[in-house]
Order: sequence, then structure tokens, then C-alpha cells
Amino acid sequence: MQNTRRRRGFEAERELVRKLWSKGFAVMRAPASGARTRLAAYPDVVAIFRGKIYAFEVKYRRDNSPIYIDKNQLEKLLEFSRRAGATPLVAVKRPNKGWKLIPVDMAKQTNSGGIKIDDEVLDKGIGLDEFIAMATSASLKKFIKNIG
Amino acid sequence: MQNTRRRRGFEAERELVRKLWSKGFAVMRAPASGARTRLAAYPDVVAIFRGKIYAFEVKYRRDNSPIYIDKNQLEKLLEFSRRAGATPLVAVKRPNKGWKLIPVDMAKQTNSGGIKIDDEVLDKGIGLDEFIAMATSASLKKFIKNIG
Repeated sequence: MQNTRRRRGFEAERELVRKLWSKGFAVMRAPASGARTRLAAYPDVVAIFRGKIYAFEVKYRRDNSPIYIDKNQLEKLLEFSRRAGATPLVAVKRPNKGWKLIPVDMAKQTNSGGIKIDDEVLDKGIGLDEFIAMATSASLKKFIKNIG
Repeated sequence: MQNTRRRRGFEAERELVRKLWSKGFAVMRAPASGARTRLAAYPDVVAIFRGKIYAFEVKYRRDNSPIYIDKNQLEKLLEFSRRAGATPLVAVKRPNKGWKLIPVDMAKQTNSGGIKIDDEVLDKGIGLDEFIAMATSASLKKFIKNIG
């Protein structure tokens, strides 16, 4: 049960990496969590498109229950993002419904200093294709402006 | 012998990550090489300081023989760097002599499409502290200019 959950989360990360790489992003997945190789605060996945940086916490969600990211995990994501100048996002994979990407400041804050993503928040998130289109065209516009 | 070499390379990567993190960089180490988790071209280490991105191939060098990076490995580093808008570097760790950082275009090209770093090239490289000072102060200047 625990293993199945971990495996699904792992497969979701792999799918996100593969998709973003295929669309031209530089992508990096963190080493396995819990390893003593974690000397620094790592997000699950970092994706970069021509200088624009995105830090992802990846969540697999099978049912309709809310997703929680606790204070410790959230602070790691935010600390990495502050240092990098990255946009922090939660990427939620749902079976048969695809991905929803939620900027961290769109989530609800919990009393314990973490965040909560429920259906209301998920509805405001964007799909993976939509995210890719936005991230790559913004860079394209900037690129064209710079050479124009 | 092979294991010792791998362990030293691994320890060098950890040292680089720790040092850059302690100086304010967002840093990420690639998952173990050879794993089927390598869906994308990863450098050994990626470090980001407020939007400026550096992609590192990390090499441990015990003696005075030249360091070679073969065509395949070089192309992965360059492909990631192109996508990310990163500066590609080779970070060379030498026992008792510290680090030398070599921008890829400072290395010598080999006939087989790779690069070679010999003593002459190493002499032109910069130390780790020097790199950190340059990378962080350049960002600081830009930051000051933007708010000034």
C-alpha cells in the first residue's frame, strides 16, 4: 500500500519529466528522497525554459480528498525557489483526468503553516499543455523582442 | 578500484553541492547515473543564483593526467545548457589543491568530438571561491541596478 503510493508518485514524476523534456525544457528530477544525499532543499522536479525556472512538488491523487503539503516540505520548496528565482508550483496528477498545476500562492494556507489543495483550488489550476504553451510562448515573445 | 573512483567522484559532487548551497545558491544533484530514471540529459550538478544558471560536469582528478569528456557526455551537458540558458562548466576536484572550474569553451577539443582538460587549461580555470564571488556579485550588481 505504502509502496504502491510511492511507486505512483515516482511514475508521476517520470511522466512530468518526460513530457516537459519533449517540449524543449531542461528538466531535472531530485535524487530519491530520504537519502543522505539530500544536502540541500530539493523540489521533486525543476524545469527550466531559456532562463525561466519552475520548481515542482509532484503529487499523485487517486480520490477527491484534499492534498496537503506540510510546513517543512513547503519551506523547502519556497527556499529553493527564492534562491533560484523560480516559480514554485504543485503538480497534481489524477488518474484519467490528467494534470493540474497550481502556483503555491493559489493554494489555501493551513493553521499549521502548510498548504491545502482541494477541489476549489484544483479548478483554478492550469493543465499541463496549457502551462507548456504559456511557459514556452512567453520566452518566445521575449526572445523575439530582444532580437527585434 | 572502480568503486573507489566512483565514491571519490560522488564525494566531490556532494562537496560542491554543500559549498554552493552554503553560499546561497539553489543546487540540485542528478539522480544516480545509469538508472533508468535518466529520461533526460542531466548534468552532474545544477546551481542557480537568482536566475543565473550553471550546469556542472564534476570530475575528480588524483594525478596529473588530462581529463577527457567524451562526445556523448559533452553533448548532454550542452543540450541541457542550451535548453536552460545555462553556462556549462567542468568542475575539477584535486586532492590538496582544491577546485578548478573550467567553462566548456575554454577546454581543448579532441578529434573524436569531446574535450580535453590538461594542465594548461586547468591553469586558466578559476577557483571555487572566485567563481562564487563572481556569480553572486554579478547578480547583486544587477539587482542594485534594477532597484536603483
